[in-house]
Amino acid sequence: MRVRAIVAYDGTDYGGLQRQTNAPTVQAALEAALARVTQEAVTVLAAGRTDAGVHAAGQVVAFDTDWRHTLGDLQRALNAVLPVDVAVSEVEAVAAGFHPRYDAHSRRYRYSVYNAPVRCPLNRRYSLHVAAPLNVAVMQQAAQLLVGERDFATFGRPPKQGGVTIRRLLVAEWYGESARLTFDIEANAFLYRMVRSIVGTLLQVGLGRMSVEEFVAALDACDRSLAGPTAPPHGLCLMEVKY
Amino acid sequence: MRVRAIVAYDGTDYGGLQRQTNAPTVQAALEAALARVTQEAVTVLAAGRTDAGVHAAGQVVAFDTDWRHTLGDLQRALNAVLPVDVAVSEVEAVAAGFHPRYDAHSRRYRYSVYNAPVRCPLNRRYSLHVAAPLNVAVMQQAAQLLVGERDFATFGRPPKQGGVTIRRLLVAEWYGESARLTFDIEANAFLYRMVRSIVGTLLQVGLGRMSVEEFVAALDACDRSLAGPTAPPHGLCLMEVKY
Repeated sequence: MRVRAIVAYDGTDYGGLQRQTNAPTVQAALEAALARVTQEAVTVLAAGRTDAGVHAAGQVVAFDTDWRHTLGDLQRALNAVLPVDVAVSEVEAVAAGFHPRYDAHSRRYRYSVYNAPVRCPLNRRYSLHVAAPLNVAVMQQAAQLLVGERDFATFGRPPKQGGVTIRRLLVAEWYGESARLTFDIEANAFLYRMVRSIVGTLLQVGLGRMSVEEFVAALDACDRSLAGPTAPPHGLCLMEVKY
Repeated sequence: MRVRAIVAYDGTDYGGLQRQTNAPTVQAALEAALARVTQEAVTVLAAGRTDAGVHAAGQVVAFDTDWRHTLGDLQRALNAVLPVDVAVSEVEAVAAGFHPRYDAHSRRYRYSVYNAPVRCPLNRRYSLHVAAPLNVAVMQQAAQLLVGERDFATFGRPPKQGGVTIRRLLVAEWYGESARLTFDIEANAFLYRMVRSIVGTLLQVGLGRMSVEEFVAALDACDRSLAGPTAPPHGLCLMEVKY
């Protein structure tokens, strides 16, 4: 049986989603929990390879298991053995050929900014502190220009060298009031570091260091060196994967 | 010069506000930062002695210093040397006799509950997870009965043995929708563990394990043994102290 699960995690203490040898990863935590609960060696496929320190509210994974009890029992057993910073919020049986990455129609990420002169300890884990005032209206104006099918080479690398850098961006929207700002972005797929590169460049616009015209010129140039600094991972969260 | 400061902290890694020998405390962190910045041995007075693991958005402290630059400079210097989980959000000069605890008219605390079948890793540090459904309407009905000047001996101990257990409760209100529930409570002062004891008992009401009538009987009995279990510290945050 192939199972699709929605997984939430606090990425602070992980070296990212994908298994690697030199850091704890969410994939390794999930596979360890599955091994313990099912007594099988299970490989987990994921929709999005979130970077080190990036969070998820709605990561989607899939795996095969011979589990003979209910899926509700599987979910409860997994949540009982998973670390406190990882949880399975939904499980369902899917077709054997289902692949969380290849079958996804779009992904939605959220980047959170805390914009106030003084940093806030209670917001520090899940949002980027920006001390200088941000002009949200011009950030939104620039963000809107990203929507559509475009070459996003300025804002990220393709998964494989020489791969296509065209993506279809569906939503790019800043909202929130006073100190708590949120940027929602949805695309059919993202290049490597694309969301954080877009956010970092939009912040340059919001700080008045780059005009909207310069932002458009950078986008059109398809030149990675014209992007602003990549925003740090802890403000980013994978919210939803749509199928 | 006596300075009043508003301090925010993530209490997760602290043994509480008040200095002690066997755990890091917020007071010790503040005094270490003040010593480094002012080159003086400064003692910090605080409005509320928050317990180990309890957070603050608006703790109020006071201290004396011969600082000769601006208060803005003092604030920036302190925030530069304080640990990431403590920050000074406001500073102002006050009369030499000002005492943050004795002069306070009231304190407002907030307790956050995440009420959903599955725990959420991204909410775990600042809210209590309650898996079973809570009846917020009856919790609110019971909470309203706490408002007024009453003997709260059921819900906490006075600072000194044999001390007065009468407090004037100004606000006790549950709000929020779906999974995220918030309880705001304000009183002239609180007994030791009073907010967490009230929350723990109201949760028993919300879970259907205690009726509103039993809650009132427990309150009226002034008997500590009739309170529900004390709610854990990580859901609690000192929001504001009023003068």
